Amino acid sequence: MIIPVKWIDGAVEMLDQRLLPNEEKWLTLRSADEVADGIRDMVVRGAPAIGVSAAYGIALGVKNFVGTSLIDLEEEFEYVCETMGKTRPTAVNLFWAIDRMKRTFQKAKKDDKTISEIKQILIADAKAIHEEDIESQRLIAKFGGELIEDNSTVLTHCNAGALATGGVWGTALGVIRGAVNQGKNISVIADETRPYLQGARLTAWELLQDDIPVTLITDNMSGHMMQKGKVQAVVVGADRIAANGDTANKIGTYMVAVLAKANNIPFYVAAPLSTIDLQCSTGDEIPIEERNIREITHIQDIQLAPDGISVSNFAFDVTPNNLINAIITEKGVARAPFTESLRNMFDD
Amino acid sequence: MIIPVKWIDGAVEMLDQRLLPNEEKWLTLRSADEVADGIRDMVVRGAPAIGVSAAYGIALGVKNFVGTSLIDLEEEFEYVCETMGKTRPTAVNLFWAIDRMKRTFQKAKKDDKTISEIKQILIADAKAIHEEDIESQRLIAKFGGELIEDNSTVLTHCNAGALATGGVWGTALGVIRGAVNQGKNISVIADETRPYLQGARLTAWELLQDDIPVTLITDNMSGHMMQKGKVQAVVVGADRIAANGDTANKIGTYMVAVLAKANNIPFYVAAPLSTIDLQCSTGDEIPIEERNIREITHIQDIQLAPDGISVSNFAFDVTPNNLINAIITEKGVARAPFTESLRNMFDD
Repeated sequence: MIIPVKWIDGAVEMLDQRLLPNEEKWLTLRSADEVADGIRDMVVRGAPAIGVSAAYGIALGVKNFVGTSLIDLEEEFEYVCETMGKTRPTAVNLFWAIDRMKRTFQKAKKDDKTISEIKQILIADAKAIHEEDIESQRLIAKFGGELIEDNSTVLTHCNAGALATGGVWGTALGVIRGAVNQGKNISVIADETRPYLQGARLTAWELLQDDIPVTLITDNMSGHMMQKGKVQAVVVGADRIAANGDTANKIGTYMVAVLAKANNIPFYVAAPLSTIDLQCSTGDEIPIEERNIREITHIQDIQLAPDGISVSNFAFDVTPNNLINAIITEKGVARAPFTESLRNMFDD
Repeated sequence: MIIPVKWIDGAVEMLDQRLLPNEEKWLTLRSADEVADGIRDMVVRGAPAIGVSAAYGIALGVKNFVGTSLIDLEEEFEYVCETMGKTRPTAVNLFWAIDRMKRTFQKAKKDDKTISEIKQILIADAKAIHEEDIESQRLIAKFGGELIEDNSTVLTHCNAGALATGGVWGTALGVIRGAVNQGKNISVIADETRPYLQGARLTAWELLQDDIPVTLITDNMSGHMMQKGKVQAVVVGADRIAANGDTANKIGTYMVAVLAKANNIPFYVAAPLSTIDLQCSTGDEIPIEERNIREITHIQDIQLAPDGISVSNFAFDVTPNNLINAIITEKGVARAPFTESLRNMFDD
């Protein structure tokens, strides 16, 4: 059972995903700044995992506060929240977790809690965010698993697994694990997902651990596999879903969605409600992170491209809602028109 | 001016493309077996370059023959042709060059040439194949360049440049060079082209040498760039074109073609007639090479995926003719219906 981020003895433990699959090394992070660095440097990645980590980071920042003034505590809290918010721009779960912690802080303050009590309340809420995330995934696995037919090969892009979330199930890999748990015979095709190779390094590693059959391909090969009838469904995670269903996810997701449509293969997005941003009306409003070009020009110290080459490194793209057959959340399965079906999920 | 394979002083000189862009090292190959190894191990790659190299390899094998019997020479010749034919299955230029050398041999034999004369004739024909290949590219550059509009950004996949051909122009990069030579303001987006990174290593290197503006992206990013209006045309090479226009080219080409269609961007294939195989009526008949999975699981000695992972490594895919706006050859520009337009090119 994979849980990539944990609160242990008043510190945040993170599995260093940059070293997988070659090494399983845990880092102990003792300050909010260290957690922020961990998110920015991709020790942990994946939208729900970033949300959980940010909540723990804020809790850690507050726990480390040594003053006695509530005003100073609030100032420190705001600073820590701001630090977390600057780590990565696209995953909305980050901002969702920050906003929730802010509401919890304000409620505790309004309830006249002491500094010591506020610290305990924020730590407890970060743990609750983590537990709720795992429970959401369990439900996504259940609802999503029902959409996958027996004897299917499912293609997935990047890693939307336990490693990308609070743990245990994952979102896209949750759907696959759900189908397997329902007794279906499922195999997986994993895109390697350049430049960061989350598919090759993380998805392949997770599925091997679970004995779910997995075949690794380059990102260039997904079209060929679909064209040859080797893919029965595509499932991906999401970093931010706009109100109309447009979905920002790892770069290359749009490409896989276009290919799935061209080959009449259903394309599913799996994500908790914390990934849905009703404030963004369409995908055009989602900020797309650009990352260091060294991710493309080098692998460790090996140079892959000539000196002085110009490089673009967009980390995400947006898949328009008309390419998405369904969005699977912990509240069930949303279908077009998404503006209505997604909004309804928040009404319960 | 890049010429990746040369006949110098009775030996074949090959630029070792596996080491580019970090090192420019030339190998001197002194036997047909060494040339065959060079093709198989991708010292040289690209369909037209493979054809030229095979012709030189056959000439070298015959040149090295030390016997005095014409029957023995023919046996050696057949053996060398068979060796070349086993190197790589998809690029039809290989078989085209072998067949042409066979016809030249038979004609020389029929004309009662001596062993010494036959050697000279075969060497001369290999050189002629090389010269004709460069001339074909010059014409492809001219005809193709006319299709590219001024102030365009052209996306290309893999390396269909001078390095992939007999040299100087290239096929897809020939079209780009042709447009530049016609005074147009052209920039290029180069897909890195996993697993072998011909785009990052070779296309980027070639275009930097020519001062043609080039931006490197991962293969996952081509869809995003098209979606954002940053691509005005796509040009690729080909490893084999069936009689109906279906085109086998580097894995990922089909994906780029589907994305171009979805974004209303013209998709062009550039290749000499030696790449067109009228014996294959459709793309279904084109054999697709599978290569060593280590190309995907490792970069040099760095392991990118977990031990024991199952991997598929198809080196090519087939783009159906309905996704292709035009096929550019040395005889001009063929458009749908391709069965007719391609056949007409051989009638002149």
